Amino acid sequence: MSSNHIIRYALGRRVHYGIVEDGATIARLADAPWHGLRASGERDTLAAARVLTPVPLPRVFGLGYNYKAHSQEVGKPVPAAPVLFMKPSTSVIGPGEHIVYPAGGENIHFEGELVAIIGKQARHVPESRALDHVLGYTCGNDVSDRVLQRRESEFGCLLAGKGYDTFAPMGPVIATGLDPSSLRIVTRVNGAVRQDGKTADLLFPVPYLIAYLSRHMTLLPGDMIMTGTPAGVGPIKPGDTIEVEIPGIGVLVNDVVMEELDARDTRG
Amino acid sequence: MSSNHIIRYALGRRVHYGIVEDGATIARLADAPWHGLRASGERDTLAAARVLTPVPLPRVFGLGYNYKAHSQEVGKPVPAAPVLFMKPSTSVIGPGEHIVYPAGGENIHFEGELVAIIGKQARHVPESRALDHVLGYTCGNDVSDRVLQRRESEFGCLLAGKGYDTFAPMGPVIATGLDPSSLRIVTRVNGAVRQDGKTADLLFPVPYLIAYLSRHMTLLPGDMIMTGTPAGVGPIKPGDTIEVEIPGIGVLVNDVVMEELDARDTRG
Repeated sequence: MSSNHIIRYALGRRVHYGIVEDGATIARLADAPWHGLRASGERDTLAAARVLTPVPLPRVFGLGYNYKAHSQEVGKPVPAAPVLFMKPSTSVIGPGEHIVYPAGGENIHFEGELVAIIGKQARHVPESRALDHVLGYTCGNDVSDRVLQRRESEFGCLLAGKGYDTFAPMGPVIATGLDPSSLRIVTRVNGAVRQDGKTADLLFPVPYLIAYLSRHMTLLPGDMIMTGTPAGVGPIKPGDTIEVEIPGIGVLVNDVVMEELDARDTRG
Repeated sequence: MSSNHIIRYALGRRVHYGIVEDGATIARLADAPWHGLRASGERDTLAAARVLTPVPLPRVFGLGYNYKAHSQEVGKPVPAAPVLFMKPSTSVIGPGEHIVYPAGGENIHFEGELVAIIGKQARHVPESRALDHVLGYTCGNDVSDRVLQRRESEFGCLLAGKGYDTFAPMGPVIATGLDPSSLRIVTRVNGAVRQDGKTADLLFPVPYLIAYLSRHMTLLPGDMIMTGTPAGVGPIKPGDTIEVEIPGIGVLVNDVVMEELDARDTRG
């Protein structure tokens, strides 16, 4: 399969999708990539573009405990079916944007993940045809507040612990034509490797996840499915640089900054 | 406070927002109501309009265990902070649309609820100003698959059990100018009253919920916050008619139908 690297990017105030041609040039697309990869005919310079998150304000589905080794490190049994939650659209940021460490945060973790992006509406899709509904793949970081997560999960729910603004970095590209069962995921904190997993170890692989989700609900173009994190999760702190690398896709790099009190001027 | 009843409605293929004037006439709005209630000058006949769900494909935030009496009936302790989850946008239907009982569903419950609709972006909003960010209120039904919910909740997550297509009926109107702390919620199944709660009993009232959510994330116009269900939840089955009534808002009526196998023709 040939692989394209699709980016969403800003040139001044205009936002486009395009295909990276040779590491220096972008062939601009006429429309969002789930409407087909039609070139507009224009070419842009990659160096002049600011690369954005692949989908603006997407629906984000997250997976819990989808790698056995991660379930073991956090002391959970292996689930019999996918365990899912949503992250709010407002948690999504792009490559280079800052993960904002919440004032009062105590135990915030990184989670490097493979993310599948839906390209074609899906409902009651069998596993055998599930990948036809995928546009491509990107890197994601399912940033999690373990204190909040634990408090919510005791009641069988999950939102705030996964849902802070900036807690879902995504990018840098949508890579098409990949085999989602044979990718490597490496997460580095300040250059040191902390996770080094492979999607061959996914408990519920991408086709299964799409079939499962689409048995319950209609999946829409632009939906992002974070497939779960391998072993090695750990804390982040302001000043850290987090990299999630998936060879064949690229490296998602985000710095962690402390929430500024003056940004909270409406708090009473 | 004066109260408007805003509806979203279809006339043929055109969709508008409008204000119901006298039970028979709609004053059409020029734009979505969170852009301000500017009349377009046109008037439509309510009898000719098909009333739709108040917000198309919204973000939906759900509350667990927000009434003490409901926590008691399901044997849960009272949470120390709001416990939240999301329902996918595709679960939302409007008044009169069918709740589709999933093939293979075993124990599906209704949950009548007050729903707050955000009108103005909110981040780090204090309780004292939270209601300034509310456009209005509607009735909601947080339909839930208890078998799936239990299986997911054991892992501290929740999606499929709350997330089937059609599992979030909303409507019929957005009522402005209400006091969300003094409303009554009545749920009827085939005419028999099953829930009769009052929002004065909300463990975390609407201003608290908005302040809490906005401490973590940016709330956007059109976001719907389902505030949790009072005691009296119970099963539904195909053929049932479910009504959620909140005096001052109206009655949300939805029939339950069995999922048709021929609608699943892509299952392999």
